[in-house]
Amino acid sequence: MNAWQLDPQLANDSQPLHSAALCDIRLMDDANYPWLILVPRVAGASELFDLSASQRRTLIEEIAQVETALQGVFRPDKWNVAALGNAVAQLHVHVIARYHNDPAWPLPVWGRTQARPYTPEQLSERSRVLIARLQP
Amino acid sequence: MNAWQLDPQLANDSQPLHSAALCDIRLMDDANYPWLILVPRVAGASELFDLSASQRRTLIEEIAQVETALQGVFRPDKWNVAALGNAVAQLHVHVIARYHNDPAWPLPVWGRTQARPYTPEQLSERSRVLIARLQP
Repeated sequence: MNAWQLDPQLANDSQPLHSAALCDIRLMDDANYPWLILVPRVAGASELFDLSASQRRTLIEEIAQVETALQGVFRPDKWNVAALGNAVAQLHVHVIARYHNDPAWPLPVWGRTQARPYTPEQLSERSRVLIARLQP
Repeated sequence: MNAWQLDPQLANDSQPLHSAALCDIRLMDDANYPWLILVPRVAGASELFDLSASQRRTLIEEIAQVETALQGVFRPDKWNVAALGNAVAQLHVHVIARYHNDPAWPLPVWGRTQARPYTPEQLSERSRVLIARLQP
């Protein structure tokens, strides 16, 4: 099996924040929503059943850890968690802080609004805050 | 804490298939997509961090078991898995078999098409097949 490499589309749409035990944790470049993705570094994985039970356990713990670590930063009304992969097959999990007044509420975010990229200053500041919270 | 009870909206929108160790597994009454939900029987849970680590581990295993058990029935192009809860706060996980020619592809299913209820005969037949596969 080839070594794992981040899908080019995911790389283009997001910025690295932290490398956890299993997943690369990245910030989606869309200022409409506080939106992270977790990408397990497992070559060829597309579905949850492509991971081992041990990897799945680590994945769901890393999702919960991200939510817990960022709950105080974002104070969302609801977390949305999803592994879709209809556009990019490489297994990745969206973790999105949702608010009653965000542009897509109460619908899921996909296909509702055009991505609004952060300014370089916003991206730098947001990344700084999130990286500090995500590090153990 | 009160005893767990299935949310009335979820009860109305879906039919029981199987009771796994942690989750009630139910079929959404929408013939547009093979669409199941897993509802952990944990009173008051809305987010993943409302479960214990042990419950989260069981949850992700039951999701993977459902996908594995039904892979041969549905033969989907992609599984979509999501815990959203914007409309119904009670923690529930959507597990949806997606196809390149389904009504919402490649977008997620929510808010795209009106639910198309099964006929009683379809519902009975589909439930029979799924229950047989979901039982250990």
